[in-house]
Amino acid sequence: MKAEIIAVGTEILLGQVVNTNATYLSQELATLGFEVYYHTVVGDNVERLEEILRDADNRSQLVVLCGGLGPTDDDLTKDVVATHVGKKLILDPTAMDKIEQYIRHAGMPMSENNRRQALTIEGSILVENPNGLAVGSLVQNQNQNYLLLPGPPGELRPMFYEKALPLLKKMLPQPDQLYSRVMRFYGIGESLLVTELDELIRTQTNPTVAPYAKTNEVTLRITAKAVNEDIANHMLDHIEEKIMEKVGTYFYGYGDNNSLGNVVVQLLIQNNKTITSAESLTAGLFQSMLGDISGVSKIFKGGFVTYSKEAKQKLLNISPEILKEHGVVSAACAKEMSEHARNILDTDYSLSFTGVAGPEELEGHESGTVWISLACKGSETQTKLYHFNRDRSYIRQSAVMAGLDMVRRSILKC
Amino acid sequence: MKAEIIAVGTEILLGQVVNTNATYLSQELATLGFEVYYHTVVGDNVERLEEILRDADNRSQLVVLCGGLGPTDDDLTKDVVATHVGKKLILDPTAMDKIEQYIRHAGMPMSENNRRQALTIEGSILVENPNGLAVGSLVQNQNQNYLLLPGPPGELRPMFYEKALPLLKKMLPQPDQLYSRVMRFYGIGESLLVTELDELIRTQTNPTVAPYAKTNEVTLRITAKAVNEDIANHMLDHIEEKIMEKVGTYFYGYGDNNSLGNVVVQLLIQNNKTITSAESLTAGLFQSMLGDISGVSKIFKGGFVTYSKEAKQKLLNISPEILKEHGVVSAACAKEMSEHARNILDTDYSLSFTGVAGPEELEGHESGTVWISLACKGSETQTKLYHFNRDRSYIRQSAVMAGLDMVRRSILKC
Repeated sequence: MKAEIIAVGTEILLGQVVNTNATYLSQELATLGFEVYYHTVVGDNVERLEEILRDADNRSQLVVLCGGLGPTDDDLTKDVVATHVGKKLILDPTAMDKIEQYIRHAGMPMSENNRRQALTIEGSILVENPNGLAVGSLVQNQNQNYLLLPGPPGELRPMFYEKALPLLKKMLPQPDQLYSRVMRFYGIGESLLVTELDELIRTQTNPTVAPYAKTNEVTLRITAKAVNEDIANHMLDHIEEKIMEKVGTYFYGYGDNNSLGNVVVQLLIQNNKTITSAESLTAGLFQSMLGDISGVSKIFKGGFVTYSKEAKQKLLNISPEILKEHGVVSAACAKEMSEHARNILDTDYSLSFTGVAGPEELEGHESGTVWISLACKGSETQTKLYHFNRDRSYIRQSAVMAGLDMVRRSILKC
Repeated sequence: MKAEIIAVGTEILLGQVVNTNATYLSQELATLGFEVYYHTVVGDNVERLEEILRDADNRSQLVVLCGGLGPTDDDLTKDVVATHVGKKLILDPTAMDKIEQYIRHAGMPMSENNRRQALTIEGSILVENPNGLAVGSLVQNQNQNYLLLPGPPGELRPMFYEKALPLLKKMLPQPDQLYSRVMRFYGIGESLLVTELDELIRTQTNPTVAPYAKTNEVTLRITAKAVNEDIANHMLDHIEEKIMEKVGTYFYGYGDNNSLGNVVVQLLIQNNKTITSAESLTAGLFQSMLGDISGVSKIFKGGFVTYSKEAKQKLLNISPEILKEHGVVSAACAKEMSEHARNILDTDYSLSFTGVAGPEELEGHESGTVWISLACKGSETQTKLYHFNRDRSYIRQSAVMAGLDMVRRSILKC
């Protein structure tokens, strides 16, 4: 069933409020099995809201309106929808009782505006508000369903989830529930990933495969429509297998709220391995990323920020010969940095970063040239050269991600 | 002039991404003097986008489209707008050069998808992308202006502000030019700032005063409508004076792309003062913030991440008595950390952070308890206790901001 969301409120059009209600409702409606094809935001204006309702009638069977149910004159959603469906506004006694009680409790005088909040559209189903005075309603006619919800997210969300959701479920023919899974990839760009998975992405309709590029990584959301979770999981496992055949080497983890940093920290904790770092151009960014993850103290004691040559010598005792012969942007310097840091703090792993954050060149190396070295207790140190693009901030972030990937692959190999 | 914003992307309709671009663009367009009457979100679908464009033509003179400029098949904004205005897509040589350079640099093969990103609409004005490969464009015909921007906020915002804004200004009738200035404040919340400036914000119509809360700081955008920049500046100076009378003590700098970190680094460079840091709970976040600022090597050599007790002893030689008697969450430990770090690297300033990032308590101190100490060559060490709120990440950021503020005030006092 096709649905759309109309948010009513001039404050959204002025950029004073982010339309997070549309995001929340979209997630919930998609999970229920509605297909949301449009979001619209319109100001507190009768003509423009009427126009949008006419458009919506031509393209959706469920129209969810949020905002404009409050007590003031510019709260006009109920009035406009009532006129649109040819019904009157009537006083709802339950809603009125609640308002009277509240007003009495607060010791305020009852105003005409308070009474407005108890009005509902004749023939509609009242949708209770667990967290406020504005009442919601579901208005149904032959072709259309209009769900009216209040604007404040603290009222809208519980009202939707607790009160409106059971009503919406009844509208759907069969429980075509959607189940989805997020897969995360590092080391492959969106273009190449899409090229590799071209056939899957274009031919699959259930499950669907949707790529999404983030900073320095790509995620795939695979979504199955099925009558229950077991069947959906079976379908998702099957498509995941096909995806892994093509691009499995870049896959690092699941979930919307995951990160490569988090996966590495969890791997280190599971394997009881400690880590330190010696950072030149990244200047603490890698260690700070570790520090953001709760529980990291089990595997991370501390490390070094050696931005200058002088700090490299003083804190890590890097040999003057290496600095003189090879310079700081060199494999030799990166290797000594990781090994010396590991020795000083006696950890299992140690990761070093040295290179050019830009915008200027350094020692004749262009911006984006970065050496990363991973020292590991009991095995040989790996040192790699990378060339990153874009601005200073992006180069430093890219270096940290590449370093995390080296650690992840090294732990998995052991 | 009437404007509307169309975001193109199925991920927004699925609730996977919040439409913050519409919020940002609404603020900027309102400041310029455009009247934004509609936001629409539509999926990656040719027919539905065409339908929305037809609606938009009937009601707006400026249509801002965001998203759908990427390299994949579902990035269809350029194709649909080209068809809508009856123009062809042509290869832009400048954009193609940039892509080729990037691809060569990254050592990747050139794909057909990459080439797609260099296509622009015939006769349109190219809008450069300072942060990515997708190019924007401004398409103009007799009645309408279409501005095409990329979806990722990190690309959209600088493209809009640096490249598109001057083009949009030209569309507005003459004397309506708007000139604005951004003032940045640290150490005062938005509610309090708004209370202090209540009269100014409510009564001023030209210049206008608009507060905006960011993470750990508040900005004010003051905007004057005037026939030329000199007159506008005179008006802005006048209102700025009134603002500074009320909340000047919290003001730290100007500009949209400024930060407290940047102001502190510039102050250190101007005063030729070096700095180091010893970080426990912040785990490199302060130093990493310094490292993000180009030119920082003049005043920053490096420092210490001493997350554990052991690292505090090994790297900074913190006395076992202090750790035993006072613990790591103590003024005494913070003071030794900053002083020892300063001595080891022989800098002018040294800032230390030690405390509880959470979510668990530490040494009986609750999450958010943070000691920050600033050692300064030739003057007494200052050590302060802070109590920050919210989650781990926010607590660590709040600590870094508070530390930066201590350094800024100390330099200004000297």
